[in-house]
Amino acid sequence: MKELIRKSVLAVSPYIAGKPIEETKRQLGLKEVIKLASNENPLGPSPKAISAMKKCLSCVNRYPDSQNYYLKKRLAKYFGLDRANFVFGNGSDELIDVIIKTLVEPDEFIITSDTTFLEYEIIAQSNDRKVKKAPMLYFKYDLGGMLKLVDKKTKLIFIANPNNPTGTYVNKYEVTQFLNALPKSVVVVFDEAYDAYIDVDDYPDSLSYLKKRNNIIILKTFSKAYGLAGLRLGYAIGNTELIGYMERIRQPFNVNILAQSAALAAIEDKEFIKKTRQLVLQGKAFIYSALSKMGLGFVPSVANFILVDVSKDGVEVFKSMLKYGVIVRDMKQYGLKNFIRVTIGTNKENERFVRVLRKVLTPRA
Amino acid sequence: MKELIRKSVLAVSPYIAGKPIEETKRQLGLKEVIKLASNENPLGPSPKAISAMKKCLSCVNRYPDSQNYYLKKRLAKYFGLDRANFVFGNGSDELIDVIIKTLVEPDEFIITSDTTFLEYEIIAQSNDRKVKKAPMLYFKYDLGGMLKLVDKKTKLIFIANPNNPTGTYVNKYEVTQFLNALPKSVVVVFDEAYDAYIDVDDYPDSLSYLKKRNNIIILKTFSKAYGLAGLRLGYAIGNTELIGYMERIRQPFNVNILAQSAALAAIEDKEFIKKTRQLVLQGKAFIYSALSKMGLGFVPSVANFILVDVSKDGVEVFKSMLKYGVIVRDMKQYGLKNFIRVTIGTNKENERFVRVLRKVLTPRA
Repeated sequence: MKELIRKSVLAVSPYIAGKPIEETKRQLGLKEVIKLASNENPLGPSPKAISAMKKCLSCVNRYPDSQNYYLKKRLAKYFGLDRANFVFGNGSDELIDVIIKTLVEPDEFIITSDTTFLEYEIIAQSNDRKVKKAPMLYFKYDLGGMLKLVDKKTKLIFIANPNNPTGTYVNKYEVTQFLNALPKSVVVVFDEAYDAYIDVDDYPDSLSYLKKRNNIIILKTFSKAYGLAGLRLGYAIGNTELIGYMERIRQPFNVNILAQSAALAAIEDKEFIKKTRQLVLQGKAFIYSALSKMGLGFVPSVANFILVDVSKDGVEVFKSMLKYGVIVRDMKQYGLKNFIRVTIGTNKENERFVRVLRKVLTPRA
Repeated sequence: MKELIRKSVLAVSPYIAGKPIEETKRQLGLKEVIKLASNENPLGPSPKAISAMKKCLSCVNRYPDSQNYYLKKRLAKYFGLDRANFVFGNGSDELIDVIIKTLVEPDEFIITSDTTFLEYEIIAQSNDRKVKKAPMLYFKYDLGGMLKLVDKKTKLIFIANPNNPTGTYVNKYEVTQFLNALPKSVVVVFDEAYDAYIDVDDYPDSLSYLKKRNNIIILKTFSKAYGLAGLRLGYAIGNTELIGYMERIRQPFNVNILAQSAALAAIEDKEFIKKTRQLVLQGKAFIYSALSKMGLGFVPSVANFILVDVSKDGVEVFKSMLKYGVIVRDMKQYGLKNFIRVTIGTNKENERFVRVLRKVLTPRA
């Protein structure tokens, strides 16, 4: 069989997902399990999204609207842009694939940072494209270091801002400087999956760059603050011509019909986003304080998760916490051996996380 | 902008979807529109699938199970195979992409037939892979002609069986002969999206080939008879090793959470599939008879649609029928100028289709 498989496929290491609640219950025989592993919204989906889906359940025998007409129209209004500035994907994951297919020739390469969202590299590999990675500087994207990697064969740069799994961000001064120094033949993707949680003043307004430059793509998602991860819906904003080419490459029915109707309703639920944001900011402060009391280091985060230095093997800590029904994420895939990543949950979930973490880190008497 | 785009992208002609009901109402100001354009199930989704989705609406804030554990387990039981024989996609469309990425090197090529499901070629193009097509013989795949195209650089063959848009099929004698003559270094994909509607005795049992050969992949879908097109869920059955490589290439959260729960329930609704099948067989007989009375030629079909020779420009007929609120599919994309394709609908829809077709084909007095 192996001789039939494309050679570069043999080198692809698949993404390891956060452990699902159901699977944990099944495998460990547990009843009460909480998941703080995948940066989901612990409040659930917006009630407006649930109502919208209910109305649409009996129409799932129909193919979804290939053009995503209503959602494009609504987002165009929301951002003050044109419908043709938007293209949708089965989660942002699919858009990463579409962007690479649209732009990167076989002999060109992609730049990103070390310790960032793993799908950039995995999807590049599955398309037989090479990725160069600049090391982080203090858990932060080093845009200067990335610039040094740029040469004539560079076509695409992925910047997760805020970055997952570190929770750090690059600010508007850094980004402006970076874009000014970058050749126009390179396209920059700002992946802003966590932008709803930003509480700093110097976060870059990427839409303002888009107005001045052709070579910018912004990725946003309904998976995180909007609470629709299970439905799979991300979108890219960009120059209409570039988006038009991406439209040729994406699959015609890539966004399911319920994702379209749920998202359309979720956009209107500003109260829900506000509540979500407050919960995250509050919960983050609570966990920061608890970690400090425990003497644990962590990376200050502008997102809805925290990278925690547990000063011992993170996989062991993950496994120990799992036995108590708390799912966090070990950082082995990211090369961060002594770390875990925890998503901010409800207040009750955060308290349980702290209690269980303390328990598994305390040496037995 | 154009200079940034990958060269082969400029050559990709995107898939043109069947016109949605909502869009037709909006554009033509019509109230009563029926869609017989996308081979959907006119009975809607199975009521069991609707109930299952209802229970899951409030959990769409969670990522779907990346492993699709329960659905794999259920299908393994259904087919008497192992969980590891199955991989899922965001519709079969995504699996076509995954199969090409898994198997076909840049200098290898793909074979299929002329006048078949367009996504084989479109997705190959988006992956920069070449496709050779054998002409049809009397609206049917010419497996002998396809064999003649095989050489050392052939890696993959797509066979839609039944074929869309012709509704024809290749029988077990033809397929057995074909497979016996084919080098083992070539993988054959049998795309059986419409297998639920088969009413002939010599349709090949592709699972029996799978038991003897490594180089077979079978594609099935929940979009058609199961009535879940809007949710996007297809699956591939194959040798566990080959499926394992496809698992590396597919995206981790490619199948949304509601598709997983709806499909799991839909499998149990055998009554619904039976009813759907009866409706299609009955409706097909009715339309055949009406077409014959109108003196129109058509291709006898084993699927839930009929390719009709309207003896004049199919795009014009499509447009004329649209004005009466009946959406069919013109066959321009397939190079069949004087044809339309009609999906079998409910009895009422079929009657309306016949009425409107007669009206638009009758020369005005």
